[in-house]
Amino acid sequence: MGSAEDRAYQALCDCAHGFMVSQVVFAACELGVFDVLAEAPGPLDVGAVVMRLGTSSHGTELLLDACVSLKLLTLETRSGKAFYSNTELASTYLSSPSPKSQRHMLLYMARTTYRCWGHLAEAVREGKNQYQKAFGVPSHDLFTAIYRSEGEQLQFMRGLQEVWSISGRSVMTAFDLSPFPLICDLGGERLTLMSELWRRASPRLLRVHAVCPLVGGSGALAKECISVYPDAKVTVFDIPDVVRVAKTHFDFPEEGRISFQEGDFFQDRLPEADLYILARVLHDWADAKCLALLARIHRVCRPGGGVLVVESVLDEDRRGPRTTLLFSLNMLLQTEGRERTPGQYHTLLAAAGFGDFRLRRTGSVYDAMLARKLLPLGPAASVKSQQL
Amino acid sequence: MGSAEDRAYQALCDCAHGFMVSQVVFAACELGVFDVLAEAPGPLDVGAVVMRLGTSSHGTELLLDACVSLKLLTLETRSGKAFYSNTELASTYLSSPSPKSQRHMLLYMARTTYRCWGHLAEAVREGKNQYQKAFGVPSHDLFTAIYRSEGEQLQFMRGLQEVWSISGRSVMTAFDLSPFPLICDLGGERLTLMSELWRRASPRLLRVHAVCPLVGGSGALAKECISVYPDAKVTVFDIPDVVRVAKTHFDFPEEGRISFQEGDFFQDRLPEADLYILARVLHDWADAKCLALLARIHRVCRPGGGVLVVESVLDEDRRGPRTTLLFSLNMLLQTEGRERTPGQYHTLLAAAGFGDFRLRRTGSVYDAMLARKLLPLGPAASVKSQQL
Repeated sequence: MGSAEDRAYQALCDCAHGFMVSQVVFAACELGVFDVLAEAPGPLDVGAVVMRLGTSSHGTELLLDACVSLKLLTLETRSGKAFYSNTELASTYLSSPSPKSQRHMLLYMARTTYRCWGHLAEAVREGKNQYQKAFGVPSHDLFTAIYRSEGEQLQFMRGLQEVWSISGRSVMTAFDLSPFPLICDLGGERLTLMSELWRRASPRLLRVHAVCPLVGGSGALAKECISVYPDAKVTVFDIPDVVRVAKTHFDFPEEGRISFQEGDFFQDRLPEADLYILARVLHDWADAKCLALLARIHRVCRPGGGVLVVESVLDEDRRGPRTTLLFSLNMLLQTEGRERTPGQYHTLLAAAGFGDFRLRRTGSVYDAMLARKLLPLGPAASVKSQQL
Repeated sequence: MGSAEDRAYQALCDCAHGFMVSQVVFAACELGVFDVLAEAPGPLDVGAVVMRLGTSSHGTELLLDACVSLKLLTLETRSGKAFYSNTELASTYLSSPSPKSQRHMLLYMARTTYRCWGHLAEAVREGKNQYQKAFGVPSHDLFTAIYRSEGEQLQFMRGLQEVWSISGRSVMTAFDLSPFPLICDLGGERLTLMSELWRRASPRLLRVHAVCPLVGGSGALAKECISVYPDAKVTVFDIPDVVRVAKTHFDFPEEGRISFQEGDFFQDRLPEADLYILARVLHDWADAKCLALLARIHRVCRPGGGVLVVESVLDEDRRGPRTTLLFSLNMLLQTEGRERTPGQYHTLLAAAGFGDFRLRRTGSVYDAMLARKLLPLGPAASVKSQQL
């Protein structure tokens, strides 16, 4: 099996079995494998893991061995018995107490994203998201669908916190944002879908379950922002339910510098600011809605101010990065949007009136783009713009 | 992003996004992307692909670009327009007319295996398969579940043909089988599950839809066998419905050398033979049932004859191969069995009375193990056994 054809076959098998690899990570997270091993004083054998997790011996042994092959666990054998412990990767990114844990985002992917992707062929055929098909909304069992989505929301918001715990600093430092003391972080992840789902729920259900109908960046980037820029103040603008959930579930120790304002960024008056952050927002929307949102921002933006767009940006020739191409299909499956090239973002921002477009590749999954509302007297007329 | 921690994060993301990679391959196969490009006289642009497939422009463009990043398609740009064609990998393994096409197996994985794996955590918790949970059998909508499974059966049988078109020759030549002129290929993939599903269907449904309740190797290995060994005759032993479907849907040009016998290998009298082939059979069953089956074979096997076990075999220390560890979890999710180490197969075969156990690693996904029914006078008493 050493020929080019054999290697191609192996590459195909690796692609085809990718979903199994994902599920090994997801299931081990969900069952608490990495947490149990992180808490234990030393390596554990299968029996000890089974006792702590309440899982089957047979299934647990197979799962642990699969984790070893994915380098999530290490295995050492003592007197013929296998003992497992977390690798550095698992300690850092998969165990709950780690500050860099990605567990909530992985669980969100396991429960929601994985199911949506089971409908990829239909999404490509129809050119639209399959969220309703994947979760049976609307269906005769609306209660289950809605109730399910409450936990999903919080999971997703926690997941976003985790994402920005990894990528937040690099996107906040990609440009020197110190010339922009007053910053507005605009949320709005999946507004339409969640609103749609929401409209179909009866008012009684809304009252009883208090589900939040959309999910924003939930202030995680705002926290990163004020820690990098000591003079910055950030207003997190998001719809009421997101603001409520963010305030209830997440810590904002420096609340004096982070404030919240409730509203729908397509309709309500936006706060005045020097800089508007749109992180993972434009990728949710088709061009027309992006343009409408950017035009609204341009109207309230202070002259010389700007907009920071944070997205996973495609290569200009659309041949990569692979992760971003996959994210783009994910947007097809779950939203009205797509991932875009620098040229496409440039075009949108220019059409809304923003100039001086610049992109900084951060090396992480998310990149940063900055564009400015040019001063009436010309682009070099203010000290602020020269400092950029 | 060049540190060890960054690389670990990237490795985790690759695992987490594995299911997206799988679905890109599955969806492109299902929609017929590779077939359309194989039939076209030259590279096609998105518009031409869309016209032939009847899919959305937006979704198709995203899918094609994702296929390029997975090296399934190549992209060339002419006067600013992207044109796509199949890579060698796609021409060989993904387009329907190719003799090595794996399309049916991929579609089976897309429709069945992917859904089962959505329940991995529960399977590990309970230690048993999740086939019923994944497909809602039994459910109030039994008709749908059953009807669905008819296509699935044929898909899976076609998929097995494809698997053996790649791996069949290497497992059939791993040992010199010419000393065994009379060979019996025992089917029986997923007997219990399908029978269970079947028992729940009403007789009327059975009559009307003629669904086959279980799936065997469907003669693909038998064909490979007689092409390698000119003196061999093979009896394919499988349950009536599988035999019927195999005869209806698959070609057996050399039918004189391949015959079919209907029966349940756990209950009915097995044909007398020099060699019994168990390909992907033992991995479906727990040890006790494997032992019962092997003991039945041992009783009818001619002295000096043997059993050829074809499976994806784990390393003795259970640390790999990764694909086999994933397959083992797949067995947990869909059957009563697991993948095993050479030592575990040796133990089972020895307990059933077979000696002279040997394993040949083929370098492909499937390996071959041969064990023999020793002659009453001792292992070296017959010319045949010396020839092995």
